[in-house]
Amino acid sequence: MTQPTEIERLIEMMAKLPGLGPRSARRAVLHLVARREGQLGPLARQMQLVADTAQACERCGNIGTAALCPICADPARANGQICVVETVADLWAMERAGVFRGRYHVLGGTLSALDAVGPEELGIPTLLARIDDEAVREAILALPATVDGQTTAHYLADQLEARVTLTSLAQGVPIGGELDFLDDGTITAALEARKPL
Amino acid sequence: MTQPTEIERLIEMMAKLPGLGPRSARRAVLHLVARREGQLGPLARQMQLVADTAQACERCGNIGTAALCPICADPARANGQICVVETVADLWAMERAGVFRGRYHVLGGTLSALDAVGPEELGIPTLLARIDDEAVREAILALPATVDGQTTAHYLADQLEARVTLTSLAQGVPIGGELDFLDDGTITAALEARKPL
Repeated sequence: MTQPTEIERLIEMMAKLPGLGPRSARRAVLHLVARREGQLGPLARQMQLVADTAQACERCGNIGTAALCPICADPARANGQICVVETVADLWAMERAGVFRGRYHVLGGTLSALDAVGPEELGIPTLLARIDDEAVREAILALPATVDGQTTAHYLADQLEARVTLTSLAQGVPIGGELDFLDDGTITAALEARKPL
Repeated sequence: MTQPTEIERLIEMMAKLPGLGPRSARRAVLHLVARREGQLGPLARQMQLVADTAQACERCGNIGTAALCPICADPARANGQICVVETVADLWAMERAGVFRGRYHVLGGTLSALDAVGPEELGIPTLLARIDDEAVREAILALPATVDGQTTAHYLADQLEARVTLTSLAQGVPIGGELDFLDDGTITAALEARKPL
């Protein structure tokens, strides 16, 4: 092959990233190799820094660079609300909206009989302990609207309903969404949850 | 912001890669952070290795890890043919086809009055020197079918026609291509260059 094995190996590794395939990985690597000083070196060092320092928050499962993530370390976020999400990406999406001022709990997955994922694998006992430790009054379930996501939400509701107020994200028409492009399920949910003007 | 600055910075750097934007960079970084030992660390080290060792071949401009790229270092490839390409990506594409057994010359761009790119910037004097040094008999111009690409091809033809046989890649219908999806220019070129069966 023409590419030296070191570069070929880097392309193979980049091609494993979500959103990149062999072609786009090759393009990205050529782009980087043409900018060795300005981009490739700094990117490699930043990656190594993150590889060395990133860790899951021991309390909520968010990704941070310390034992407690910035949210769990911030006393102002202990407002009695906890938002239960499936993934760290979901947590970041909630934070981008910037409205929720409580804390999170990242399950890291959903209950799945097929994949043998039970409550322990998802850290649900830890969540139950946090409800008491952090004097949580409201648990907001922000879980995906998939079968496994809803199974998990029901299970959590069973476990939590005696101890906290339970809420879940509203379902309906997205802001800026056109009815014509929405699936029937979303339209049905939005109609059933209609509100007086 | 929720993301620690180190991770935020890595996402920003990844988002500058071609084919990735802020969203897909975030997704890729989350994917990597969840696989710190298995993927992020090795990828960082491989990137650093490439940053430290990759260099342009001093003869042809291909990317390699030594002063001469594997093709220029291989005496069997000095077969009197030289293929002139615009970019290293084009060179790799030619190599993937696996048919051409000569050497390459990477211009690194095309002549462009607007961008003040002249023959020196493209290493054309080096190419002319190589024609003599390496006893080249045939120069295959594999330049893009853009205005600048064709201007460059004409300029090279002027410079080289007294010394070597000049050829260019055939234009026509791609293998597996359907006429219905081809532009008019390609169909016209393929018709004019039709061959007896």
